[in-house]
Amino acid sequence: MRTDLCDLLGIDVPIVGFSPSEQVVAAISRAGGLGVLGCVRFNDGDELDRVLTWLDSEVGGRPYGVDVVMPGRVPTEGTPADLGKLIPDGHRDFVERTLLRLGVPPLGVDEPRRAGVLGWLHSVARTHVDVALTHRPRLIANALGPPPPDVIARAHAHGLAVAALAGRADHARSHLAGGVDIVVAQGYEAGGHTGEIASMVLVPEVVDAVGADVPVLAAGGIGSGRQIAAALALGARGVWMGSVWLGTAEYQTTEALRQALLDARSSDTVRTRIYTGKPARLLRNRWTEAWADESAPSPLPMPLQNLLVSGAHDRLMESGDPTVVPMPVGQIVGRMNEVRPVAAVLADLVTEADETLARLGKMA
Amino acid sequence: MRTDLCDLLGIDVPIVGFSPSEQVVAAISRAGGLGVLGCVRFNDGDELDRVLTWLDSEVGGRPYGVDVVMPGRVPTEGTPADLGKLIPDGHRDFVERTLLRLGVPPLGVDEPRRAGVLGWLHSVARTHVDVALTHRPRLIANALGPPPPDVIARAHAHGLAVAALAGRADHARSHLAGGVDIVVAQGYEAGGHTGEIASMVLVPEVVDAVGADVPVLAAGGIGSGRQIAAALALGARGVWMGSVWLGTAEYQTTEALRQALLDARSSDTVRTRIYTGKPARLLRNRWTEAWADESAPSPLPMPLQNLLVSGAHDRLMESGDPTVVPMPVGQIVGRMNEVRPVAAVLADLVTEADETLARLGKMA
Repeated sequence: MRTDLCDLLGIDVPIVGFSPSEQVVAAISRAGGLGVLGCVRFNDGDELDRVLTWLDSEVGGRPYGVDVVMPGRVPTEGTPADLGKLIPDGHRDFVERTLLRLGVPPLGVDEPRRAGVLGWLHSVARTHVDVALTHRPRLIANALGPPPPDVIARAHAHGLAVAALAGRADHARSHLAGGVDIVVAQGYEAGGHTGEIASMVLVPEVVDAVGADVPVLAAGGIGSGRQIAAALALGARGVWMGSVWLGTAEYQTTEALRQALLDARSSDTVRTRIYTGKPARLLRNRWTEAWADESAPSPLPMPLQNLLVSGAHDRLMESGDPTVVPMPVGQIVGRMNEVRPVAAVLADLVTEADETLARLGKMA
Repeated sequence: MRTDLCDLLGIDVPIVGFSPSEQVVAAISRAGGLGVLGCVRFNDGDELDRVLTWLDSEVGGRPYGVDVVMPGRVPTEGTPADLGKLIPDGHRDFVERTLLRLGVPPLGVDEPRRAGVLGWLHSVARTHVDVALTHRPRLIANALGPPPPDVIARAHAHGLAVAALAGRADHARSHLAGGVDIVVAQGYEAGGHTGEIASMVLVPEVVDAVGADVPVLAAGGIGSGRQIAAALALGARGVWMGSVWLGTAEYQTTEALRQALLDARSSDTVRTRIYTGKPARLLRNRWTEAWADESAPSPLPMPLQNLLVSGAHDRLMESGDPTVVPMPVGQIVGRMNEVRPVAAVLADLVTEADETLARLGKMA
C-alpha cells in the first residue's frame, strides 16, 4: 500500500500519526509512517526545543512533522494572569462546585500545576514555528484554520511541506489558495477540534474541491486497515490518525485515563466547547455531563475556556477516577481495547489495509 | 460488483434504495437494485394497498421492499384528535407566531390538509405489515428499533427477509437476537432519524458485532460509487441509500423543495427533534433555525411533535419558499446538484464503484 504521499514525505506507508507525545511520534516515524508532534501543549518555547532535539536524535533519520494551532481568527492575546481577569466569577464558582460534587480532591502541594494551554495564541504558535524551523521536521501542519501566509512562505523556504486541517470543502479551497501542500479532511467523528460533516461525506467532497494535484489525508474515525482502505476508496492519498495512539504502550499517562479509554464505547464521546471554547470531541463522562446540565454556564470563547478549566483538568487527571478524566478523543475510542506498542498497531493497520484492498480488487 | 446480498434478495447490484415515492421505488427495482417503499406516510391502509398493487404491476417482476416504522418504545396511541389534546397551547402559539414571522401564508381553501404522520404508532405500523403481506415485497425493514417478534415470524412465514436499522452495535446485536436477517448500519450523516456515530466508525463496528453470516448494509452519507466502494471496504455487503433519490426526476415534488435540495451544501443540514420528537436530520433553513432559537420551546415527544407541526409542514411546503421547506435529508445533499432519472444515477453508481474497486485492487 503505497501512494504518492509516500514519495512526497519520504515514508513507507501513507499513515500520518498525530500525537502530543514525542515517544509516540518517534515510534510512528521509526515504523515507517509520519509521526506528527502536537505542539499546543508547549507554553514554553525552550521546552519544545528540548523535545525536538530529542526527536531529531530518536527518529533514526526518518521524517517527522509538527502540528501547530494557529486559529483563523486570532483570539485575545495576553498572559494567563491578564486573560484570567476576563473570566466571570460565576464560571469559576461553577467549576469549583462541580469538582466538589464530583468528589475530585485538590492537588497535593507537590503536584505540578499547569498554567492552561496558550498554544492557540498566535504569539505562542509563532514561537512554535520559530523553534520548529531550527530542527528537522518534514511537515508543518495547522490544526485550526488557514496557516498564515508568512508561515507558509517560511516553511517552504526551509523545504517543509505544509498541511492544514479542513472540516468543510470551502475551508480546503481557502487552504489551497493560501499555498498549502496537503489538506487533512477531518470528519465529525474525529477527536479534538472538529466540524459537523462526517468523513464519508467530507473526504470525497474535499478531494474533488482541491483537485487531483493536491494530496488529501482522511482524518476522523480511522483505527483499522479496513478504514484506511475506505479512505483510499473515497479518494484520500493517506490517513491522519490521532486517537488510536492514545491506546499504545508508548503513550505515557495515568492509570485512570488508560482505563477510561479502554472502557469507552464509540457512543461515549461528545462534541462540546468546554475544553477550549471551540467545538471539540471529548470522552463523555461525569465532567462533560456536568457541563451539559441546564444549570451549567455557557463555555467561554477561546482561549479563556481552557484557562478557566486548566486547574480543574489537573485535578481531574490526578484524581485517579476514570469517570472524570478530561480527554479529547474520537469515536474510534470504542475500538481501543488493548494496549500495544506503536509498531504492532502500525503493522496490523498495513496488513489489514492490504488484505482489504486485495479483497476489493477481486470484486471489481 | 456483486455480493451475496444480490443472491439473497434477487437483485443485480447490492444497492438498496429507500424512498417514500412509489415511482422512485419502481425505478430502482427495475434498474437492478432493491427499491424500498417508506410506509410511514400512509395513515390509511387502503391507500397503501392501492400503492402496493401499482408497485406489483410496475416492477416487472423485480423484487422490492417495504419500510415500516415500529419504534422500540411504543408511543402514546390515539386518534389525531385525542392526541392533539396533549399538545400545550404554548407550542401551538410558537408555531403560529413563527409561520407569521417567516411570511408563510395559510393554506388556500382547496389545498389538501394532512392529519399528521401516525405511521409510527404501533397500531398503524401493524396495518402496514398486514397490508404489505397481501402483496409481493421481498423485504420488510423496520426503521426505528427492533421489529416485534410476531412481525418477524409472520414475515419469515411469508418468505420475506427482515431488515432493521441500527445506529449502534448493541442495537444490531439485539436485532440479530430477535431474528433479523439484514442489519442496516446507519451513520450520523444520514437523513431522517439517525444516531450519533458516523458511518466510518459504525459500519465496521456493526459488521464485527453481527458476524460474517449476517449481511450489513451501510447507510448514511452514500451518494457515489466511491462511497459504495468505501462501504464495501468497511465490511458492508451493500448500501442503503435514501437522500439521493430525492434529487431524481421520478421524485415528484414542489419547485421550492427541488431548488432547496439543489442549493444545499453538506453543511446545510441539522440533526434535531423538531420533525417527529426523535432526533432526525433535516435541511437546515429558516424553519429549523427558528426552533434552534433560545426562545423556542423544546420539541414534544413522538408522536405529538409531528401532529403539532403537520399543519405547518403543509403550509411551509406550499409556500413556494425554498428557505423554509421541512425536509429530512442527509449530509450527501451537498452532492445533489442535478436532476436525473433513477436509472442514470444507478448506472453511474455502479460504474464508479467498479472503477474504484479496480483502482484499489491495483494498490494491494
